Amino acid sequence: MRVEILCTGDEILSGKTVNTNYSHIARRLGEVGLDVAWGTTVGDDRASLLAAFRQAGDRADAVIVNGGLGPTVDDLSQEVAAEACGVTLVLSDYWLQRMTESYARRGRVMPANNRKQAMLPEGAEFIDNPIGTACGFAVTIGKARFLFTPGVPREMRRMLDEQVIPRLLKLGGIPGVTRLKRFHSFGIGESRADEMLAGIPGLAIDGEIKLGFQAHFPELETKLAARGATEAELAAKLAPIEAEVRRRLGNFVVAEDDATLERVVLETLKAGGHTLAVGETFTSGAIASRLAPLLGAEHVFRRGVISPEMTAEGAADRLRAESGTSHALAVRMQLDEGGDRPDFGATVTVQIADASGMVQRVARLVGGREWVRTGATELGLDCLRRHLSGLPVDERIDFERR
Amino acid sequence: MRVEILCTGDEILSGKTVNTNYSHIARRLGEVGLDVAWGTTVGDDRASLLAAFRQAGDRADAVIVNGGLGPTVDDLSQEVAAEACGVTLVLSDYWLQRMTESYARRGRVMPANNRKQAMLPEGAEFIDNPIGTACGFAVTIGKARFLFTPGVPREMRRMLDEQVIPRLLKLGGIPGVTRLKRFHSFGIGESRADEMLAGIPGLAIDGEIKLGFQAHFPELETKLAARGATEAELAAKLAPIEAEVRRRLGNFVVAEDDATLERVVLETLKAGGHTLAVGETFTSGAIASRLAPLLGAEHVFRRGVISPEMTAEGAADRLRAESGTSHALAVRMQLDEGGDRPDFGATVTVQIADASGMVQRVARLVGGREWVRTGATELGLDCLRRHLSGLPVDERIDFERR
Repeated sequence: MRVEILCTGDEILSGKTVNTNYSHIARRLGEVGLDVAWGTTVGDDRASLLAAFRQAGDRADAVIVNGGLGPTVDDLSQEVAAEACGVTLVLSDYWLQRMTESYARRGRVMPANNRKQAMLPEGAEFIDNPIGTACGFAVTIGKARFLFTPGVPREMRRMLDEQVIPRLLKLGGIPGVTRLKRFHSFGIGESRADEMLAGIPGLAIDGEIKLGFQAHFPELETKLAARGATEAELAAKLAPIEAEVRRRLGNFVVAEDDATLERVVLETLKAGGHTLAVGETFTSGAIASRLAPLLGAEHVFRRGVISPEMTAEGAADRLRAESGTSHALAVRMQLDEGGDRPDFGATVTVQIADASGMVQRVARLVGGREWVRTGATELGLDCLRRHLSGLPVDERIDFERR
Repeated sequence: MRVEILCTGDEILSGKTVNTNYSHIARRLGEVGLDVAWGTTVGDDRASLLAAFRQAGDRADAVIVNGGLGPTVDDLSQEVAAEACGVTLVLSDYWLQRMTESYARRGRVMPANNRKQAMLPEGAEFIDNPIGTACGFAVTIGKARFLFTPGVPREMRRMLDEQVIPRLLKLGGIPGVTRLKRFHSFGIGESRADEMLAGIPGLAIDGEIKLGFQAHFPELETKLAARGATEAELAAKLAPIEAEVRRRLGNFVVAEDDATLERVVLETLKAGGHTLAVGETFTSGAIASRLAPLLGAEHVFRRGVISPEMTAEGAADRLRAESGTSHALAVRMQLDEGGDRPDFGATVTVQIADASGMVQRVARLVGGREWVRTGATELGLDCLRRHLSGLPVDERIDFERR
């Protein structure tokens, strides 16, 4: 099945807004096995929209249109869709009532121009939007089924997962349900992770469960995109593979799904009834800045100190004693001389002190000032996670040089 | 003149990479008065590329193609361009030599597959790339001039400004030279800035000097895109308008062009021979994290303290005394109760202490946990900038509630 994405709107076309909706849609489709063949961007312009609809209708089997469903005059998607289909716009009493009720619940009267959002091409299939006033819809133009989605990212994302992808899978004769399992790791690059996961039956880039990676330094995201006839069948198929991936990536997994490394560290500290002080040099508050603002951190994170001149010897022990906390994390960086450059590096010393003493980890990172700063921030947090979980803090990572 | 952008590459098409090249190109073109009419994205696929070239060649006067100029087999731009033009690829001896020399200067031998990057469609116009191995080129397909640029962002950006835009302006019969002047401000929204700049002769969205805004909270970027027959004429025309914009935006301007608020603060501290300590609560090191890692900050930034329980009374004075610095900045936040929500707010207290005493600024910010944290970080830095420059620290900003 050939799928295209068509993004509309002057803000996107002019580059004022970076088109993250496009990348989100394309990635999610790829994760369920639907590869995007073509992307088009046009502005809020009747002639361009009509031409884009007709061209995509000639080429594709399915087209996801994003944007242009708002209440203002420059939102043209319904109108031009109707024109391309050769039908008129008709009022959806159902959606008008839903919008009116939604405003009423918040003690407000629906503005008159929102009525436009309930006008759909005659015969269009209604697509629900449980969290906004722009409903989606589907029509056929040329040989393609067009699915219209709102430009507001959170509304689009939910509609995509709950409404659009199931319809596309049905359209493509691809049965069943899908799920995306995600592992966040630190310390291994994409190629090493790929090696570590080689040979797991049923798991491959083109396997029954699709394996994918997304690197956003310093973390790597490993994704398992699974499909099954039913939820039960999917769960039964995914569970052993998920467990095997978790086992193989092992100590490098810092969090899963929507969790983050800092959240995992905070929850572990909370569960143990611990308190924390953090000392930093060149990371300059970047470690504190990931932990301290978290909801619930106020009882755990007691103190952060940033001092470019923090000495290495016993820093965490001293910090712990001064702060009166159960744990202290100190991350010191000795930077190379001179200005920024690709081979600019630093020697990072991570110390963790608790009631039982102090552990230390030294690593050399290279890759420019911001790169090593980001790497050291993650390394400090990850060493703390490992220490709290009884894992070795000195396991070699791919980013360090010897 | 109708201009289109055509982006190529599987990473972009699949959404794995967010297409920031597109938004950069479109924005830069808009700034010189060239509006983009259509955007196309295709993968590393011969048939799609050829179809996309032909369609754009039918519609447009000029097409900027981005990507596909690399040394590997999936980089197809030159090949498919030659096919679309009905010519063969010929070796550019000049570019082959330039590449060979560039490798030799770094003590390396050019890999054999880089030779592919010197193969251009017969009769193509060569476009220089002074910082990479992918040269650009231009050919005519259909009725449009196609300008091919590399996918590596820094190479594309430089080629766009130095080579592509001048060619497009010439092609469109738009004479002269262009310049972009940028002001970064904090505390005023786009609509207020627009009002403040109303009525400056020659400056408007569609004026001789194009006025544009780009909001990236907490800062607003105000851009003046100017064109002149010659550099001298341009400078003469821009200077008085630039001065007037600077005067009207006044105390809200935190930096200009490539400078940043934190760099301005650091340079002002350095120039005065000052040293600084920073105390934070919920900003959690975000202020320190913007100042301390800057090149040259090591002699100025002496100490940062993050303590969720920092008391308001005399915090900056105490911090200054304890740290032995000439200046201290303390930013305290009292957060609203409960979880995150759009109307979650905080009362921010900024204190600055120096030898002459202490100044204080209190503001209430609203907009969710991360939003108020970002706002308070900027407010703290901006109050320090203002204090160091003898400007009032208590000027009301658009983001605060009373």
